[in-house]
Amino acid sequence: MPSRRATILVRRSTRTTRGSDARHAVSGTRAVGLIENRLAEMGLELPAALVAPPGVRLPYESVRIHGGLAYVSGHGPFDGDRQLFSGRVGAELDVEQAYDAARATALSMLTSLKRDLGELDRVATWIKVLGFVTCAEGFNVTPSVINGFSDLILELWGEAGRHARSAIGAAELPLGMPVEVEAIVALA
Amino acid sequence: MPSRRATILVRRSTRTTRGSDARHAVSGTRAVGLIENRLAEMGLELPAALVAPPGVRLPYESVRIHGGLAYVSGHGPFDGDRQLFSGRVGAELDVEQAYDAARATALSMLTSLKRDLGELDRVATWIKVLGFVTCAEGFNVTPSVINGFSDLILELWGEAGRHARSAIGAAELPLGMPVEVEAIVALA
Amino acid sequence: MPSRRATILVRRSTRTTRGSDARHAVSGTRAVGLIENRLAEMGLELPAALVAPPGVRLPYESVRIHGGLAYVSGHGPFDGDRQLFSGRVGAELDVEQAYDAARATALSMLTSLKRDLGELDRVATWIKVLGFVTCAEGFNVTPSVINGFSDLILELWGEAGRHARSAIGAAELPLGMPVEVEAIVALA
Repeated sequence: MPSRRATILVRRSTRTTRGSDARHAVSGTRAVGLIENRLAEMGLELPAALVAPPGVRLPYESVRIHGGLAYVSGHGPFDGDRQLFSGRVGAELDVEQAYDAARATALSMLTSLKRDLGELDRVATWIKVLGFVTCAEGFNVTPSVINGFSDLILELWGEAGRHARSAIGAAELPLGMPVEVEAIVALA
Repeated sequence: MPSRRATILVRRSTRTTRGSDARHAVSGTRAVGLIENRLAEMGLELPAALVAPPGVRLPYESVRIHGGLAYVSGHGPFDGDRQLFSGRVGAELDVEQAYDAARATALSMLTSLKRDLGELDRVATWIKVLGFVTCAEGFNVTPSVINGFSDLILELWGEAGRHARSAIGAAELPLGMPVEVEAIVALA
Repeated sequence: MPSRRATILVRRSTRTTRGSDARHAVSGTRAVGLIENRLAEMGLELPAALVAPPGVRLPYESVRIHGGLAYVSGHGPFDGDRQLFSGRVGAELDVEQAYDAARATALSMLTSLKRDLGELDRVATWIKVLGFVTCAEGFNVTPSVINGFSDLILELWGEAGRHARSAIGAAELPLGMPVEVEAIVALA
């Protein structure tokens, strides 16, 4: 079920302690990359790294690097051990909530990329995104859901964020997530 | 709903204005590649490039090139803004119609590749195809549907068209499409 | 339907003709690779290569190699022409049976890799796994199913078996298979 907290996480406005010049406020405290500066400017924070729910083993890597590419596992809208959105789009969630879930999914993926790459600026270009949406019967505007992922990547990376994509309706996604996205990115 | 027009598009016989020697008829007028010659010999024409339906944003690239590979977004059976086939296989469509939809999907993908690569001959080899089929409950012969895509690629590229593949039953595909296919190809 | 034979295939204990030191027993008869030695030590045998069921054409390659990577087609729990598991997880199969089906799927994929590469040791590292699970309504612990695939790869390859992954609920899979997995591996 989408929580109020989730919406806040995704759309939190720039915090007053940073003021309108978030870039300087942040870079004044520690060296962060361009992408993290943009996140701060947008008032967004990376969620905590995914913690597997009780009783579920996840024996795979969030990110696997080979040949200058990072292959990124399917991610969903998690903040640590908290699942921010659950349910089928067109039933428990409407398309706007699902868009937010896809945006939260992008943020969770960025957390994994930062942890494994050290810095998000190491992602030079986005290549391919494969998004899945849990659809209630009859809901098929899956592109409008996965746009929540794509829009954030384009806002952050600009031209370098452009990617090929598919948006598929899944029967079920792990743990009732409404959205799951995997990706291939090229490293600097 | 499959339209009569769609069937004509996919199976149109060689037009009389080209006669039986389509290759020469075509290459006599302008320099086209080997693949486009074969298309003409088969009496096939590339559809118009996909135009997003009203109210749907598609903020992604049809084709994304990196490291000598082209990553191709999920395509469906479109001709410009016209969706040539709709519905679930095993309900609104039978397997032969769905085969035709997969073939039309291949043609739509070739339109994207031609536009982005300049010429289809730049596709040196096909590598991987991931096909999705909207299945009515109980329909599971998804390979026989995606064969409509694979057969056309093999007819056009011969040995170089050989590819690894999966054919998956999706709960829903964008806008009620019966088939969606994404691919990875290697460039010359 | 899961057969008793299937369970035997997946979990067969080391055969008495090999004794407890399977590695020497096997390597004494012919040179096999490290991975095949491990399989023998675990009491596992590779199934026969997939034979397409009657009336179904599969015009694609099991494995397609390009740029030092092998792109592996979607595989399921087959032994030659015998489908070892059928049905939806959460209905005809429980999660333990589905785990076994994913393990049998890994073995079938290894058969394809051995046939096309000559030797399994040519698989230097695993990169990416995309798994699909046919889910009865309400079953969504797809990761616990695909773990049957991942666990076997990690048992056999160790660190080199680590991979990025997604586990998606499909509406239908070819021929009623409960599990289908495709992969990208890097070659030595």
